[in-house]
Amino acid sequence: MLFKNITMIDENFDTVKEINILVEDNKIVYIGKDVPENYSGEVYDGKNKVAMPGFFNTHCHVPMTLLRGYGEGLPLQRWLTERIFPFEALLTDKDCYWGTLLGISEMIKSGVVSFTDMYSHLESLVQAIDETGIKANISNSYLKNDDTNDYFKHNSYKETEFIRNYAKNSKNGAIKGDVSIHAEYTSSEDLVKQISDYCNSTEMNMHIHLSETKLEQEGCKKRYGGLTPAEYFYKCGTFNSKTTAAHCVFLEGDDFNILKENNVTVSHCPTSNLKLGSGVAPLKKMLESGINVTIGTDGAASNNNLNMLEEVNLAALLHKGANKDPLFLSSKDMLKISCLNGAKSQGREDCGCIKVGNRADIVVYDFNRPHMQPVYDVLANIFYSAQASDICLSMIDGKVVYKNGLFTTIDIEKVYYNVNRIKTEKLSKLR
Amino acid sequence: MLFKNITMIDENFDTVKEINILVEDNKIVYIGKDVPENYSGEVYDGKNKVAMPGFFNTHCHVPMTLLRGYGEGLPLQRWLTERIFPFEALLTDKDCYWGTLLGISEMIKSGVVSFTDMYSHLESLVQAIDETGIKANISNSYLKNDDTNDYFKHNSYKETEFIRNYAKNSKNGAIKGDVSIHAEYTSSEDLVKQISDYCNSTEMNMHIHLSETKLEQEGCKKRYGGLTPAEYFYKCGTFNSKTTAAHCVFLEGDDFNILKENNVTVSHCPTSNLKLGSGVAPLKKMLESGINVTIGTDGAASNNNLNMLEEVNLAALLHKGANKDPLFLSSKDMLKISCLNGAKSQGREDCGCIKVGNRADIVVYDFNRPHMQPVYDVLANIFYSAQASDICLSMIDGKVVYKNGLFTTIDIEKVYYNVNRIKTEKLSKLR
Repeated sequence: MLFKNITMIDENFDTVKEINILVEDNKIVYIGKDVPENYSGEVYDGKNKVAMPGFFNTHCHVPMTLLRGYGEGLPLQRWLTERIFPFEALLTDKDCYWGTLLGISEMIKSGVVSFTDMYSHLESLVQAIDETGIKANISNSYLKNDDTNDYFKHNSYKETEFIRNYAKNSKNGAIKGDVSIHAEYTSSEDLVKQISDYCNSTEMNMHIHLSETKLEQEGCKKRYGGLTPAEYFYKCGTFNSKTTAAHCVFLEGDDFNILKENNVTVSHCPTSNLKLGSGVAPLKKMLESGINVTIGTDGAASNNNLNMLEEVNLAALLHKGANKDPLFLSSKDMLKISCLNGAKSQGREDCGCIKVGNRADIVVYDFNRPHMQPVYDVLANIFYSAQASDICLSMIDGKVVYKNGLFTTIDIEKVYYNVNRIKTEKLSKLR
Repeated sequence: MLFKNITMIDENFDTVKEINILVEDNKIVYIGKDVPENYSGEVYDGKNKVAMPGFFNTHCHVPMTLLRGYGEGLPLQRWLTERIFPFEALLTDKDCYWGTLLGISEMIKSGVVSFTDMYSHLESLVQAIDETGIKANISNSYLKNDDTNDYFKHNSYKETEFIRNYAKNSKNGAIKGDVSIHAEYTSSEDLVKQISDYCNSTEMNMHIHLSETKLEQEGCKKRYGGLTPAEYFYKCGTFNSKTTAAHCVFLEGDDFNILKENNVTVSHCPTSNLKLGSGVAPLKKMLESGINVTIGTDGAASNNNLNMLEEVNLAALLHKGANKDPLFLSSKDMLKISCLNGAKSQGREDCGCIKVGNRADIVVYDFNRPHMQPVYDVLANIFYSAQASDICLSMIDGKVVYKNGLFTTIDIEKVYYNVNRIKTEKLSKLR
């Protein structure tokens, strides 16, 4: 496909006008002022359109889209024990397949080209991801200490090996397998060490929750002789694997250095942190420490959506206010954080910006909208004015997966039907 | 029009399913399970749709939509003196007409049925507001102390009298005139007293900026022997008129009581406060003090949009995080704040909720969207998942002004053309 006379955000995050982008197979093969000679393929008219790199949503639990708004208004512990856990216990592989399709639909509509996920039922996730054409790093973290303290006897290990083998044999590399430890407070030290050693013996990345709540932070210090969660995981060898740590709201003291020195990526999830009353993560200090900061939506149960553009917009605003600095987090900073840093965290070196040789992950915004006019600063309009519904085309790995409000790979009416069927079935069992 | 078998949020903020709403002229005349006998008018199919009361945007500078993203990334003072003020000095009545149409387009698309505005060029605002069918309380605050210290010789007085007379002679009451004092730091004490006395002698409401920045708060205390801006305006008699005070980020001490005792409405503008690095307003303490809290977008120059749904969503999230309390600001609280309290602040007692006898301000959301499924809690989906683009119909005073992406009263292509013409013209003069 040829994007003709389009405005583009280039690899230096500069805005380039009236440019042509040629995509062949899954790659960007040409960017320039001239239309390639003898080109006879599909042409996309770029008038009033802006081609952006796609977002990388670096923390999600995609099947939890099935639980959106379920148990709203309950205190955290009651919400978990009375609503979330009983509902999740009833979820089958097939249910998770439909929940994953619903979540991916939302993500595609909001500019996501790849996501990092932590859940279970990985076979059903693989099926859904593969059908839709999105990319993902997925992992299983369904750990219960009381089941067994031997990781290799646990279903989580089985699923991790499954996804590892799947990824190894995958030709397009769209799906990668990660290892995952849910969190310090949900795993014994013995398990953390087993899983870390296992991950360190493989080529896989690690995905964890870290310092999300004050309870976790203080509890960890009590349990482990004053060690913060970051210090604890470092001591357990977890960070010897390339790690993505979600939340990091309560980082303190040497935690920042530990994450920086060990190349740990932070997945900042501002909506979830606000909605659950956790607080505001110290983003400025993370960036000043040189940490690879990225953005995640978390699951729809605590967000309550997977609208990545909204998440990025919120991050851009929130930390200006929190730091009393209107110049903190420029549009270019936000672009790097939401695209390039995310690609890096997933080990996708040929993704994250629009340049020749990179995978063709291109999200097109229609600027012919009241809230997108006038245009003095293209990136400012994207990061402070745009809505997900301004996205009129999404291409992932060279394939158009969404165009003018329609999915090319998802039968959304069938998804709605099944999601509602699942809701009705589960509620009847829970009553 | 008859909304048939629709889900509705009723006057108690409860969700009612499969209900019929009948609108005649500008009023809601019937709500019930039965379809009125012999009804032969237009029928709107409510399947998968939710009828919500419209939002009241209680603080805006609507013509500033023309300046969206202009001077992004500059420090506040340079942004104002090098960009905003020189651009504004070039704006004509006709420019403001087009800017107002653009801003109203955005507001209608995001569920606004009425807004409270502070700017100038009021004749052009009246023309645009009247054409579009939206409601508004508008005021002129273009005060420069160095011009004159006599309010009655100032253009602001002339425009205020114009809008007052316009409102008095208006049959439908859609446009109301307010009096406005820009802020403590931009007006002399003498002017504040003159304007307050004038307003107190009329039937009009007052609209001011209050305690937006730390600089203003501390500066006021220095200038007026320790008085906070709230204490200062109280002393000047300003609050003897029904007042809407925008921002209120730095309220302290007795300020909360003063606002409560004097029935001052707060217009909380979270996006603007974050984006300009002002901070987070003490919403919880305002509500605990019994103050009438409402939501405003502020102007598009510091937001950078007039997306009221996004503003309401942000408020719902932000204060849960700021107060470390996931149960603070329930969906019902947010509904009251964004609709009913706003109507009350504008002196529109027959607006703000869907009930028989009220004006027919009805905003319909389409739930047939990936991010709006499944539905466990209708209001939670509206306040935490919805996007402005889910709004499929907006009725103001019984008239459909927006349906399925199209405006019925605005030629949006003509607006785009003129907004861009204005941009080009002004930039050529500024260079």
